[in-house]
Amino acid sequence: MLRIGVDAMGGDFAPVQVILGAADAMQQLSGLATLVLLGDADKITGICRENGIDPGIFVICPCSQVLEMHEQPVIAYKHKPDSSMARGFQMLAEGQLDAFASAGNTGAMLVGSVTTVGSLTGVIRPCISAEIPLLNGGKMLLLDVGFNTDAKPDVLYQFAELGTVYAQTIMGIDQPCVALLNIGEESEKGNMTTREAYKMLEESPMVNFVGNMEANYLYDGGKADVLVCDGFVGNICLKQSEALYSVCARLGLNREFLNRFNYEEYGGTPVLGIKAPVVIGHGASSPRAISRMILKAYDVASSGLVQRIQQQMLD
Amino acid sequence: MLRIGVDAMGGDFAPVQVILGAADAMQQLSGLATLVLLGDADKITGICRENGIDPGIFVICPCSQVLEMHEQPVIAYKHKPDSSMARGFQMLAEGQLDAFASAGNTGAMLVGSVTTVGSLTGVIRPCISAEIPLLNGGKMLLLDVGFNTDAKPDVLYQFAELGTVYAQTIMGIDQPCVALLNIGEESEKGNMTTREAYKMLEESPMVNFVGNMEANYLYDGGKADVLVCDGFVGNICLKQSEALYSVCARLGLNREFLNRFNYEEYGGTPVLGIKAPVVIGHGASSPRAISRMILKAYDVASSGLVQRIQQQMLD
Repeated sequence: MLRIGVDAMGGDFAPVQVILGAADAMQQLSGLATLVLLGDADKITGICRENGIDPGIFVICPCSQVLEMHEQPVIAYKHKPDSSMARGFQMLAEGQLDAFASAGNTGAMLVGSVTTVGSLTGVIRPCISAEIPLLNGGKMLLLDVGFNTDAKPDVLYQFAELGTVYAQTIMGIDQPCVALLNIGEESEKGNMTTREAYKMLEESPMVNFVGNMEANYLYDGGKADVLVCDGFVGNICLKQSEALYSVCARLGLNREFLNRFNYEEYGGTPVLGIKAPVVIGHGASSPRAISRMILKAYDVASSGLVQRIQQQMLD
Repeated sequence: MLRIGVDAMGGDFAPVQVILGAADAMQQLSGLATLVLLGDADKITGICRENGIDPGIFVICPCSQVLEMHEQPVIAYKHKPDSSMARGFQMLAEGQLDAFASAGNTGAMLVGSVTTVGSLTGVIRPCISAEIPLLNGGKMLLLDVGFNTDAKPDVLYQFAELGTVYAQTIMGIDQPCVALLNIGEESEKGNMTTREAYKMLEESPMVNFVGNMEANYLYDGGKADVLVCDGFVGNICLKQSEALYSVCARLGLNREFLNRFNYEEYGGTPVLGIKAPVVIGHGASSPRAISRMILKAYDVASSGLVQRIQQQMLD
């Protein structure tokens, strides 16, 4: 039985929506995982009762503080050691949890990931990723989507390694094709960072590098399974994909493909390159999104992704 | 009468499509401008005759060389002084043309813009821009969309000035709101460059700065008339907008708003910050796109944009 920690106080609509989502996830993980809810125990119990949920399906871990969405991440994380978020990271680092998930303050989640859990040996900078839906029905992993706004070429190169292991482990792709997000196909195109990263990727024995990819092919599929960029560019790409969904929704356009861009389907993004499974949910998470986030945390923990990334970094 | 130079040999489907587009533009510019077609005079005349166009509606300027789409820009531009493109820039720089437009090799167009025409006094780096369609029916100017892949904060700041003058002069907006494309609303969000640029924009007496804007609001409108970013990020944004159009087209979705993303509607992007009007067309230009490109060149030349930018830079 895996123990998945869930920050009950994290997210714009916490704790109610988080608890409803956790109850949904619990149905699907019954017998596979224990959900440990961190937060205000009275509130959690009360909300469970109001919604006809037996609080006994969860393990509730009481915490006296809440790290709010708008707080400055580094300061708040340091000064609220008994917040549901800081406590979750602490339990994860001490081995009392097998994974931790929160839709709370994203910046603080990144702080906890590197300070309390810590990077794997050999990882220069951890990163976060998103699975972008493709027109052919598949998905493409985009990384980094916001952790490292200034990434040097060796960091971009390492994202390609992290993405390769993720695609193999979580997406079930044996030999993932990796492309570099760029503004032209040719090797000399792009900025100083991508030009250097191109050379490193081209010479890599580990990464199956297929060259540069332009953003007009972002949803086409077939060209790459993993798309590498820095966190500034990747975050803008991801947000622009959200714009695609909202534009079409507002135009009254409805297609199954477009619905896959609904953030509720993503659930959450795992932090790659740290010593234990952490999944960051969307701040505006609905119960459905929370449930997806928890299932993603289970997938990451049960797949042994962390161990496989560590193995790759030591090879 | 303005004299607009058109590179008849530039573009994937040149010269036929260029000539058909030029004939269309000529109908709309009759009495306002003379179109000077640069290229193989025999071919131009022959294509005109084959398509029932009187070659006498144009001024044809014979050139013996063609700068091909795939050629290395700097080398090809230097070694083909009698190419239709190099000759067009030469005539523009010498005052024999009032504007020059080409759908040819984009890199070579940028080389000609800075080497033959040259930057205006005080302009650190010229840039290119695109008018992004908004859901409210308006447009937002995005710049830089590909000229400067590594832009320092002072260059980003200057893009805001260039964009402000463009929005005032070409888009008819008196007090354009300028935003910085970023991955969060707060001033401390982003990479090292955007954080520095934010400070400069905030203190600007000239730019009406409204803060950071995230890419999920890209098509919303209302927030900004001008959106500033470096050419690497801007080019990716623009290409991803093309992906929005092609995704919806392939899903059989048809709305007037989406059709505005069709590159044929853009026509071309003027190079901002150089001493004369230059418009770069899309390589895959159809006659309609060529016609739009030429009309854009006319708009830029007749509006006095170059002089207004120079005035701003000297203030």
